[in-house]
Amino acid sequence: MKRQVRVLAVDDAPFKFDNDRAMVVGVVMRLPNYLEGVLRSECKVDGDDANQVLELMVQGSRFKPQLKAIMIDGVALGGFNIVDIDALHEAIDVPVITVTRDPPDLAKMGSALRKHFPDWEQRYEILRRKELLEVGTGHKPILVSLAGIDYYEAEEIIKKSMVRGAVPEPLRVAHIIASGLAKGESKGKA
Amino acid sequence: MKRQVRVLAVDDAPFKFDNDRAMVVGVVMRLPNYLEGVLRSECKVDGDDANQVLELMVQGSRFKPQLKAIMIDGVALGGFNIVDIDALHEAIDVPVITVTRDPPDLAKMGSALRKHFPDWEQRYEILRRKELLEVGTGHKPILVSLAGIDYYEAEEIIKKSMVRGAVPEPLRVAHIIASGLAKGESKGKA
Repeated sequence: MKRQVRVLAVDDAPFKFDNDRAMVVGVVMRLPNYLEGVLRSECKVDGDDANQVLELMVQGSRFKPQLKAIMIDGVALGGFNIVDIDALHEAIDVPVITVTRDPPDLAKMGSALRKHFPDWEQRYEILRRKELLEVGTGHKPILVSLAGIDYYEAEEIIKKSMVRGAVPEPLRVAHIIASGLAKGESKGKA
Repeated sequence: MKRQVRVLAVDDAPFKFDNDRAMVVGVVMRLPNYLEGVLRSECKVDGDDANQVLELMVQGSRFKPQLKAIMIDGVALGGFNIVDIDALHEAIDVPVITVTRDPPDLAKMGSALRKHFPDWEQRYEILRRKELLEVGTGHKPILVSLAGIDYYEAEEIIKKSMVRGAVPEPLRVAHIIASGLAKGESKGKA
């Protein structure tokens, strides 16, 4: 792996349940913590445009040729707007890594999907398709799912992303920006 | 000076001349480059609310007790919405440092003010009141004006803020966030 590794880290901003749309913030970072760019988009809350939003964010960016990976905080943007990372990787030809700290309760998510979405089976299939793999961080391990990248390369990128604590720095920064802009002041941690 | 030094760095987002308001972004950073919070506000383009906007941004922030200084990119937000840093320091009781890379052309600014603002003399007085002091950065020196802080302490904060190049890292990050959010993708450098 080259010395300079750039990733795009994506998080959604907090939203209220009567909001139609949620802000999506992308942060281009040279690992571990040199911010090079910030991108903004938005997606439909509980919609199905997460892939399209991320594809446009990446394709429209001058940073695209330099990106080693897209890191996404969780598996969805704006509620249940689930990202199909295999399709995203295929569309943009950049590896995709989702990062979560706690294993999702798939049974609970499945029943919430069934209740609220006519296309729940499709959303549930995306949620369940990818294996969650553990990556050690020196703190609590994090869970990743991968598309277009093998475990060892993903692990190297995650380890290069760590500054303090158990959250990759690009995702921590994306979270602070997204929540700070949504609320006026950011609170809590990614 | 304590080991952990936090500053709030402020920049305005690019705006078009038919915009009434410009976004203002504040970044709370533990020097040199650990982002802890992002604050958002806005001010009137060419208005006179810059001090009020910054005062509310600081007073409303949970970070206020920990701030060693406010750094402002330039002497105004949103065009000619000039910050009176003496009055700001008095209002918030936190030292204020403006940072510019090139000496302003005061004569040119004065004649622009005279042409467009009935209260041009007041604005011009604020612009001229503060001495600009040079701080070495290892690259091109930067120019600062100060309120509530002496030269040597300001110099120490500036030097602690440097990561690469000649712009304090908190201001570089505030600039990237502000311009990224205004345009969708940030361009250029602070």
